[in-house]
Amino acid sequence: MSLNLQTYTEHFTNPLYLESGRILEPYDITYETYGELNEDKSNVVVVCHALTGSHHAAGTYEGETKSGWWDGLIGPNKAIDTDKYFVICSNVIGSCFGSTGPMSPQHPHQEPYRYKFPVVSIKDMVKAQRILFDRLDIHRVHAIIGGSMGGMQALQFAIHYPNFANKIIAMAATHATQPWAIAFNKVAQEAILKDPDFKQGYYDPEIIKEQGLAGMAIGRMAGHISFLSPESMREKFGRDYKLTDGLYELFGKFQVESYLEYNGYNFTKWFDPLTYLYITKAINIYDLSRGFDSLREALKRVTAKMHLISFKNDILFKNFEMLEIADEFKNIGNTNYDYIDIESDYGHDAFLVELEKFESYVKDTLDG
Amino acid sequence: MSLNLQTYTEHFTNPLYLESGRILEPYDITYETYGELNEDKSNVVVVCHALTGSHHAAGTYEGETKSGWWDGLIGPNKAIDTDKYFVICSNVIGSCFGSTGPMSPQHPHQEPYRYKFPVVSIKDMVKAQRILFDRLDIHRVHAIIGGSMGGMQALQFAIHYPNFANKIIAMAATHATQPWAIAFNKVAQEAILKDPDFKQGYYDPEIIKEQGLAGMAIGRMAGHISFLSPESMREKFGRDYKLTDGLYELFGKFQVESYLEYNGYNFTKWFDPLTYLYITKAINIYDLSRGFDSLREALKRVTAKMHLISFKNDILFKNFEMLEIADEFKNIGNTNYDYIDIESDYGHDAFLVELEKFESYVKDTLDG
Repeated sequence: MSLNLQTYTEHFTNPLYLESGRILEPYDITYETYGELNEDKSNVVVVCHALTGSHHAAGTYEGETKSGWWDGLIGPNKAIDTDKYFVICSNVIGSCFGSTGPMSPQHPHQEPYRYKFPVVSIKDMVKAQRILFDRLDIHRVHAIIGGSMGGMQALQFAIHYPNFANKIIAMAATHATQPWAIAFNKVAQEAILKDPDFKQGYYDPEIIKEQGLAGMAIGRMAGHISFLSPESMREKFGRDYKLTDGLYELFGKFQVESYLEYNGYNFTKWFDPLTYLYITKAINIYDLSRGFDSLREALKRVTAKMHLISFKNDILFKNFEMLEIADEFKNIGNTNYDYIDIESDYGHDAFLVELEKFESYVKDTLDG
Repeated sequence: MSLNLQTYTEHFTNPLYLESGRILEPYDITYETYGELNEDKSNVVVVCHALTGSHHAAGTYEGETKSGWWDGLIGPNKAIDTDKYFVICSNVIGSCFGSTGPMSPQHPHQEPYRYKFPVVSIKDMVKAQRILFDRLDIHRVHAIIGGSMGGMQALQFAIHYPNFANKIIAMAATHATQPWAIAFNKVAQEAILKDPDFKQGYYDPEIIKEQGLAGMAIGRMAGHISFLSPESMREKFGRDYKLTDGLYELFGKFQVESYLEYNGYNFTKWFDPLTYLYITKAINIYDLSRGFDSLREALKRVTAKMHLISFKNDILFKNFEMLEIADEFKNIGNTNYDYIDIESDYGHDAFLVELEKFESYVKDTLDG
């Protein structure tokens, strides 16, 4: 069968009550679906995206060559088999790919929110999705799966909507963002804020897309360090040198420098800087235990079967962070979980790149 | 006895032939000494400084409160005992604390070199020191010790001047700078270069010192991530939040963010940005095997007793990098070395901070 890729935007006029006490109204949520909803609506799989991801998780749009960010995992006969499952991936609130975010027009006038946009949390992102599913008349799903910030959402779903999903698969994530991850985000935020072309948030997004924003490129370079691991960087780049430049030229480049430059500057062509500030803020303040006495108390709410996956050399969300969740389940006496630490040299981005290391596990989990 | 701190600057008019094929002439080297040279000049200990360090390794200048960067290690009755040893620490060529660097006047006129300054390597830094010691009529030393870039210098001495030192103590260093370390430097270099106040290298250093340079602060923040470890960041900062700012304020700050800001911006008051570009370049191109068929061939030249020290959670120069040197000695059949991996959660900066973990080893090595 075909992937049956569909893209929609739903408009909501009821206020979205945010964790901060502020509200967002009205707001849009853009989402994509793959496969077909079955009659009793028992085949829904929710996919959650990461920091710079979007609802476009699979398939390729007409006229484009790049496919969705988890295209290798989602499709007919793939691990998340769209012949069996109706897959929904929505762009998170606060993002810049269709759902309402800081550069969306602030109702009722047409000027973008910019700094008037409220801080949203991962919990808010999940709440907005829950409201979307209500609209779609979906009140329980087969599974929720995501990596990195997508994994945070999956975990947040498990705690705040314990009866919503049968199975939760969270990978390359944590229970609360740790200082080294906050530090990487800080470098990026500071670099964006201090770039004069950012114009203290009052930039023209079209100009940024055309000319790039050095500050965001620099911040993204720092991010890329955290997405890889020493092992994968050694394997990928070693000390290879671009021989067109001399070793003794101040601006001669190692391969790793060219890689960072390319990915850093290219990023500014397709991602919005204010959005980067807001989403990294959401990641920084993410803490499953907020509102509870402890992580343990928070995890006591969970009823879904939990599948916790870490990657051995992830330096952003370290494998022991996921283990800390598993340990709390053990302490609680909840045995309804799996914890898997995947052997991988790749680093954090393994959840996007090394699909072969977990696709059969995902398939078995969904189908089992 | 007293520390007997003395600061000198020597002027050299002969050309310094650099690895790049370029020359530096004339040039100055600023250095500091502690203790007294004994009659047969057999008690010299050379201390080598790191990226942002200087010749001021011990003692406190009149009117200042901050002491030298290894003050805890160097002094009467300390591990590097100035009652016994005559300690010399020189500011490296290319730095900004008295030795000739990119902001020094380019002979014969008085304008700073800026980009006309040649790229210097760690080998060049060591060569300049060797010439300084010749001038001081010191032709062999008891020991050379350094951490981080100082450790690189110590290793470079061992290979290029094999008969110069009896003992080499290199800590928190590597045999060749690896891509993740180059990547951290890249973020800093790019942030400096793209800051408009850097004026493409034609900034007024006095204005920078007064107003700071955001780009260098941002780069330094990235550096600080690499100087710590996840473990030490968790211990130091956790998820502590500055409660004066709200969690849901976009610019509210975690403790780790305040730490990075303070250290980043403070740094720009006392370090020169062009110098940062040149010294990080020297670190990036550092490779003991350059000019040899392999690292093994390079290490075959070593005759000194080698003391290799790594710190377990150093994420900048990882402990396996030092082990790779030790393994090559083993392969060569050179048993005249020690390799110690120190248990430490602190990270790279352990060589500056956790003196208690290696001071007795240093003392025994020097005195033994």
